Amino acid sequence: MKKSFLFLLIGFLVMNNGYAQVNQDSLVIKKISDDIFMNGQAYNNLKYLCKKVGPRLSGSAGAALAVEQTARMLREAGADTVYLQPCMVPKWERGAKEVGKATLSNGKSMPLNIVALGMSVGTPAVGITASVVEVKNFTELDALGAEQIKGKIVFYNYRMDPRHINTFRAYGEAGIYRSQGPSRAAALGAIGVIVRTLSPVIDDNPHTGATRYDENKPKIPAVAISTIGAEELSKAIAAKQVKQVYIKTNCKQFEDVLSYNVVGEIRGSEFPEEIITVGGHLDSWDLAEGAHDDGTGCVQSIEVLRAIKANIGKPKRTIRAVMFMNEENGLRGGTKYAEIAKDEKKKFIMAMESDAGGFTPRGFGFTANSMQKEKIMSWKPLFHNYGALEFNEGGGGADIGPLRGLGTALIGLNPDSQRYMDLHHAKTDVFEAVSERELNLGTVVMTAMVYLVAQYGL
Amino acid sequence: MKKSFLFLLIGFLVMNNGYAQVNQDSLVIKKISDDIFMNGQAYNNLKYLCKKVGPRLSGSAGAALAVEQTARMLREAGADTVYLQPCMVPKWERGAKEVGKATLSNGKSMPLNIVALGMSVGTPAVGITASVVEVKNFTELDALGAEQIKGKIVFYNYRMDPRHINTFRAYGEAGIYRSQGPSRAAALGAIGVIVRTLSPVIDDNPHTGATRYDENKPKIPAVAISTIGAEELSKAIAAKQVKQVYIKTNCKQFEDVLSYNVVGEIRGSEFPEEIITVGGHLDSWDLAEGAHDDGTGCVQSIEVLRAIKANIGKPKRTIRAVMFMNEENGLRGGTKYAEIAKDEKKKFIMAMESDAGGFTPRGFGFTANSMQKEKIMSWKPLFHNYGALEFNEGGGGADIGPLRGLGTALIGLNPDSQRYMDLHHAKTDVFEAVSERELNLGTVVMTAMVYLVAQYGL
Repeated sequence: MKKSFLFLLIGFLVMNNGYAQVNQDSLVIKKISDDIFMNGQAYNNLKYLCKKVGPRLSGSAGAALAVEQTARMLREAGADTVYLQPCMVPKWERGAKEVGKATLSNGKSMPLNIVALGMSVGTPAVGITASVVEVKNFTELDALGAEQIKGKIVFYNYRMDPRHINTFRAYGEAGIYRSQGPSRAAALGAIGVIVRTLSPVIDDNPHTGATRYDENKPKIPAVAISTIGAEELSKAIAAKQVKQVYIKTNCKQFEDVLSYNVVGEIRGSEFPEEIITVGGHLDSWDLAEGAHDDGTGCVQSIEVLRAIKANIGKPKRTIRAVMFMNEENGLRGGTKYAEIAKDEKKKFIMAMESDAGGFTPRGFGFTANSMQKEKIMSWKPLFHNYGALEFNEGGGGADIGPLRGLGTALIGLNPDSQRYMDLHHAKTDVFEAVSERELNLGTVVMTAMVYLVAQYGL
Repeated sequence: MKKSFLFLLIGFLVMNNGYAQVNQDSLVIKKISDDIFMNGQAYNNLKYLCKKVGPRLSGSAGAALAVEQTARMLREAGADTVYLQPCMVPKWERGAKEVGKATLSNGKSMPLNIVALGMSVGTPAVGITASVVEVKNFTELDALGAEQIKGKIVFYNYRMDPRHINTFRAYGEAGIYRSQGPSRAAALGAIGVIVRTLSPVIDDNPHTGATRYDENKPKIPAVAISTIGAEELSKAIAAKQVKQVYIKTNCKQFEDVLSYNVVGEIRGSEFPEEIITVGGHLDSWDLAEGAHDDGTGCVQSIEVLRAIKANIGKPKRTIRAVMFMNEENGLRGGTKYAEIAKDEKKKFIMAMESDAGGFTPRGFGFTANSMQKEKIMSWKPLFHNYGALEFNEGGGGADIGPLRGLGTALIGLNPDSQRYMDLHHAKTDVFEAVSERELNLGTVVMTAMVYLVAQYGL
């Protein structure tokens, strides 16, 4: 009887203790949330990044200014230390606006709203002119074979599948035409490639994004065409009205240049050697202000520091906000960060990235071992009031991926994905497309997760 | 042994049967979802409602056109029967653009960006001019008392609390100044009221919305001022720069006029006397296109019919899509619908309303008895893939509220609330502020719920 009473008592104390902890943490998280909604700086910082800095492709003047300005923002957020991690990055420039048109059999010409794909080679100064072959996918391409592709421009008209609820899944499926399309067409003798914009919306905004050439295939010019443009071109081809297509792009690859990751740190009070990384990528495509991709991830990470400092003071473990350079066309910043981390001989216990837009949060995705996951899952109820209900297997972020080798638990913020692909890599990815409250709510759940890991470890 | 084997077998069959049903339903819901994302008409219909019909305040020409056009949309969606339910509605008109300004002690005047509150009386033709008293809330108002309020204009500068995660909660708290503010000020002798716009955003868009006069208090003119305007006016008052405020509004109340609810029906194949209602309200404020409030609810409800017809054919129970008239300033349509329902002597088993914007769905709120709730909760896993994870106690919609007397289970669609209050009742509530995918996803979960109730009853 005594023994069982003891067990009961212990059980009660453990439960009670667990309850008290959850209760205490939920109060801290509410305090953080209130502060972010009342005093948050993420939206102001984003405005600066979009409107005063603007596009910031790796190696550009915009990227250099972004390094300087986010270092300032990190200092203002209360970081103990702010420093730069040098890394060499590719430098690609679009040059003058692209020109595209289709010559029609009635003698008229149809303008094509195109943009060069990132990392694409430019056309010769006179442009390229050739007949065009439309394919829906690689199966159709390969069925045509070299005989019908040689000397022509290939038009990949793969429509993003609107049936996937998560638009990243549709993006993943369609993305292979942008990344592999040029080299696969070049292998069959094509001299240029037009890829339908990766967007679920029918509009006249071509989206750029990186393509990747196979080193042992000819590098041919590659452009994206707006979805309206793709529909019109397809219709004209079907009606056998298109004689030839003309493409002129002016992009150029330069030598690698020096750039930086920007790191701001609050040193842990009890376990300073245990590092929590939270970041976004600082570079953006040249067409856009890079608001959702990924200005929001950067300013949210800066805000995590501010909110921790303002509401917790000294966290038990060290927290680093990192602005990664060169996610879009090289991942040199993320790679460099992991290289340096390896040398630091500290414990990189968790890394979180926000690089899926500044939309209302749905939850997180985890790449972690089972002990880490169990601990994280035990915190799930704390996120219920903030709409982060989905704790899913898998996820993280491109920039933090290289940390996986160190046993770091990777966490990706998963915002609602419905609107992201409408504006991703396009000129419509501007400050005005971001909701202040959605941005702040994302920051609240990021800060809550960072707080829990900082206090309890993983 | 035999008995326990029998139990086991029964248990297995029940489980298996339950599993098979869930599995079958999840396939049907996927089919509905695919169809809505591939062939949905909600976005096109919304464009028509916003751009070709436009504002549609009860009693206006826009409202009459909206009745006609949504009847057409319901026929096109495949309704068996489309009919109108006549009801008398209030008719209020804003008249010419309002003018507001503050006369400053330096001799200059400061323009005030104001709009009359809906149902407000107009000022005399010469406007009203008086000194202004700012209060943050009713406590401050009452503390000042008649002595300091008499003959003045009261300026309610209550800021919506940004700390509430659900913006409807902040709206509820702040809304009392718009609805009760004029009569409470009039009771102390005020001659006019300026209410800070109900919006979490600091911008220059005043939001309208209905005010309600106490019948036994003087009816005094009431306007909303933009949030920027409120901040500037407050600053000037604090600096003792404001001598007087001038307000001129031109609104007018007319006799009630005839209008209609629009109803489209698919008759049930097995239980036609059991009615499922799904609706939104057709009227909108005059300043806006009424996109999120509540064009989206209307076109979603029409789309529910289309998707049921296209994917199920004949549902077992009768489904009615209802465009309720006059939610904004009278609720005459919702009241009339329930009155007629009482006379119909059918079973109004469930009513769902979408009137919280066409944003990405978060879940549903339920006002129902425990048996109804239990059944609904058993379907929750079917909604997981579509992001509708929150099944909450309480909710429904203003228009379906009067059905509660018939024992009808009321269900409100709960979309994400972060962006709604930014544009609610303002000129920024336009078609362009709606995401096609978010709208469709909301429709998917509405259709899924209607499908389940239509097949299994409540």
